[in-house]
Amino acid sequence: MITLPICTTDTPLYKQIYEWVKAEIQAKNYRPHDKLPSKRKLSEHLCVSINTIDAAYSQLMDEGYIMAVPKKGYFVCEIDEYHNISIVEHDTTQRAQEGKSKVVVDFSPSDIDHTSFPYKIWRNLFKSCFDEADSSILKRTVSQGDMNLRKELVTFLHSSRGVNCDEKQIVIGAGTENSLRTLSLVLSKNTSIALENPVYRKAYQTFSHMGRKILPIPIDDKGIEVEPLQGLSHVAVYVTPSHQFPLGISMPIGRRVELLNFANRAEGRYIIEDDYDSEFRYIRKPIPSLQSIDKNGKVIYIGTFSTSIAPSIRISYMVLPINLLNDYYKIYSEFGSEVSILEQRLVAEFIAEGYYEKHLNKMRKLYKDKRGHLLKELAVFGDNIKVIGESAGNHILIKLLTLNNENDMCQAAAKNGVRVYPISNYLIGPRLEKYQNTFLLGYAALSKEEISKGVHLLGTAWNLAVSSI
Amino acid sequence: MITLPICTTDTPLYKQIYEWVKAEIQAKNYRPHDKLPSKRKLSEHLCVSINTIDAAYSQLMDEGYIMAVPKKGYFVCEIDEYHNISIVEHDTTQRAQEGKSKVVVDFSPSDIDHTSFPYKIWRNLFKSCFDEADSSILKRTVSQGDMNLRKELVTFLHSSRGVNCDEKQIVIGAGTENSLRTLSLVLSKNTSIALENPVYRKAYQTFSHMGRKILPIPIDDKGIEVEPLQGLSHVAVYVTPSHQFPLGISMPIGRRVELLNFANRAEGRYIIEDDYDSEFRYIRKPIPSLQSIDKNGKVIYIGTFSTSIAPSIRISYMVLPINLLNDYYKIYSEFGSEVSILEQRLVAEFIAEGYYEKHLNKMRKLYKDKRGHLLKELAVFGDNIKVIGESAGNHILIKLLTLNNENDMCQAAAKNGVRVYPISNYLIGPRLEKYQNTFLLGYAALSKEEISKGVHLLGTAWNLAVSSI
Repeated sequence: MITLPICTTDTPLYKQIYEWVKAEIQAKNYRPHDKLPSKRKLSEHLCVSINTIDAAYSQLMDEGYIMAVPKKGYFVCEIDEYHNISIVEHDTTQRAQEGKSKVVVDFSPSDIDHTSFPYKIWRNLFKSCFDEADSSILKRTVSQGDMNLRKELVTFLHSSRGVNCDEKQIVIGAGTENSLRTLSLVLSKNTSIALENPVYRKAYQTFSHMGRKILPIPIDDKGIEVEPLQGLSHVAVYVTPSHQFPLGISMPIGRRVELLNFANRAEGRYIIEDDYDSEFRYIRKPIPSLQSIDKNGKVIYIGTFSTSIAPSIRISYMVLPINLLNDYYKIYSEFGSEVSILEQRLVAEFIAEGYYEKHLNKMRKLYKDKRGHLLKELAVFGDNIKVIGESAGNHILIKLLTLNNENDMCQAAAKNGVRVYPISNYLIGPRLEKYQNTFLLGYAALSKEEISKGVHLLGTAWNLAVSSI
Repeated sequence: MITLPICTTDTPLYKQIYEWVKAEIQAKNYRPHDKLPSKRKLSEHLCVSINTIDAAYSQLMDEGYIMAVPKKGYFVCEIDEYHNISIVEHDTTQRAQEGKSKVVVDFSPSDIDHTSFPYKIWRNLFKSCFDEADSSILKRTVSQGDMNLRKELVTFLHSSRGVNCDEKQIVIGAGTENSLRTLSLVLSKNTSIALENPVYRKAYQTFSHMGRKILPIPIDDKGIEVEPLQGLSHVAVYVTPSHQFPLGISMPIGRRVELLNFANRAEGRYIIEDDYDSEFRYIRKPIPSLQSIDKNGKVIYIGTFSTSIAPSIRISYMVLPINLLNDYYKIYSEFGSEVSILEQRLVAEFIAEGYYEKHLNKMRKLYKDKRGHLLKELAVFGDNIKVIGESAGNHILIKLLTLNNENDMCQAAAKNGVRVYPISNYLIGPRLEKYQNTFLLGYAALSKEEISKGVHLLGTAWNLAVSSI
């Protein structure tokens, strides 16, 4: 019979008995088909109530350790011996941690200014959005996302980017990559993806991961070349026309129409317009979007709040042409939105109350100022560098006109505490001569002092010129 | 020369000139290679400053309508004629809208109680999380998600579900389907997915959409059968052992070990444990997770906050075995998290401050009460029905023992204002006789009065018995 050391700990009695019997079974002291003492016997033996034994046995039955055979009693179940195998532990070194070398100034092209965020407005919006009176804040929405946000976007995108759509065409995503993944599922299986080369890396990776055939297309001074696309039948062309990433080119109207006409000339051709950085154009007014020119349902328009509000806001939006909606519903009609409902509501209110417009104006002014400061500081390098792509977005490019090895230049900069981003990082395939020694300099997250310091450190690292700070 | 009607509206002068020239080019009044008037000439003609003309011309150049030829002047660019094609507008009927027939009581298995949400705590957490002092709330995190939340989960999952892991194994996702999609990218291309049949539909759909080969496996009274799996080499077996969806079975320890041993016997075999509904077990204590028994890195553990906090909280978590981490990093190392950082922080604080535990206890009690009430009400049906799967989760099942056509039964219920969910909806492939006339009844979102009313309406609809309300 059981010799269970009943303890006076907080653990309930039934649990102690359960644990003990389980351990005995696992240790093979009780074997399959062995009979356990009856509940009555055990209760007498342990001087506990029969209910306690009942609770222990019931739990053991629930978990499948023992079974009750009517009129016969409780028996141990047959349980396979658990086979342990020796695991070869793979190398689990975490991805390279940021900041291994001591970075003083990081010209990251994907960061934003963190000092001007309207925290107070955001807190007030939360207070009004998250209210007992409206339990819809606890419910999922349809896969396309919150209706309030979609309605706000219809109006906002029309006024700011000329986008023509209604709310049923809008699909809210959890960031650009998430939207591209969704699109990848919606586009017919035989559709290849043509990408600008150099390209926004995560777009390239996302489409590759989703098993899409990738066609890298060269870029000239007007943006993606249309000539190499001719002859392709089922293809979606991913472009960043407002401020090509990484080259910073704004696609002129001629190329825009050429691209749209390419799509118009055959079925199954689409343009994916990632309108990245369109909010931040510093010289004159923004260039209208491709979607605003399109009359034939050929443009899939994508945008995000990650640079215009904050990178932590995981909300992007995709405007699908009407002729792709059925394909979207086929995949997504039973799914709910993957984007935080709360955050969708906050952003919807942020736009509706006019805060977004004000915030954009403020940030545009701030970034223009920083950009001007960077350009002014870079002037000391004179003819040693050429500045490119400075009309929009949150980064510019500099091309070094001296003949040096690009890797050496990056390393020299890093050694001096400055991180710059060579275009080679964004190329699909071999490094091209014409993009050698061209570096992205993002300035959005940096203060003017940091910008000055960064340029000074670059100058000494690259032996270009030394401004006095 | 231009005869531009200069207006006195709010539109800046330069913009009026720009718009006019653009319209003339589009209307072919200016043709490609035509020369435009010089800036000086036009400024004199229109009596505006030369700077105004300069701004207009610059914008036209930016957009690619005109170009400057040094020492010659401004010329109209060549722009393709935009080809309009006639679109066949596809049928865009939105997915079937909820609530077409008048639903009085919806026994939805996926809804939760909305009356007990701790709104005030949530508002206070927001206030403390969203603070000027900590700009990290504006930044993206690594793809695996917020470190605070991952650390909280390590502790919480260990104490509540016996899960053994550290924070580098945890990947935060935007809901279960999002996590399954991530997993689908991480598992080697030749891995098939074995699914319980009947199955959680969205898991089935997600894996299908991701192009995975699907193997539907029958279920017996212990859960998924292991015998049909034998012989499969590269396979991940998706199971819901705590409370099989939809059948409500809790997998006994014997089957758990059998399943783990199947995985142990060959490389490339994994178990995907969706621990759905494990929080809500009403009879005795929860059954330990498969992950807690696994010693060989064979179990991928998945959970979600959508039933335990709210469906609008788009946060799931996946615990990867160490030997899959490298494959994960290969895909995701350059990506950021797609889950709202703010919401991750809120949930992390909610757990850390002990609110989550309290909330779970409260909800468990509430649901247990509702479940008891439903079972009591169903008792009037006597031997006409059999109740299944009542030990856990937020739904039970009833099997009608009368011989009726299932579709007719659903329609009769709907006509009477009650929505029930037949198991056939969750079957892959043909309807099986043994699952005929078995319906899910979710009760979490319903009040006791609604439950009583729902059962009463079902009784009259199905001619079973009429209780008096």
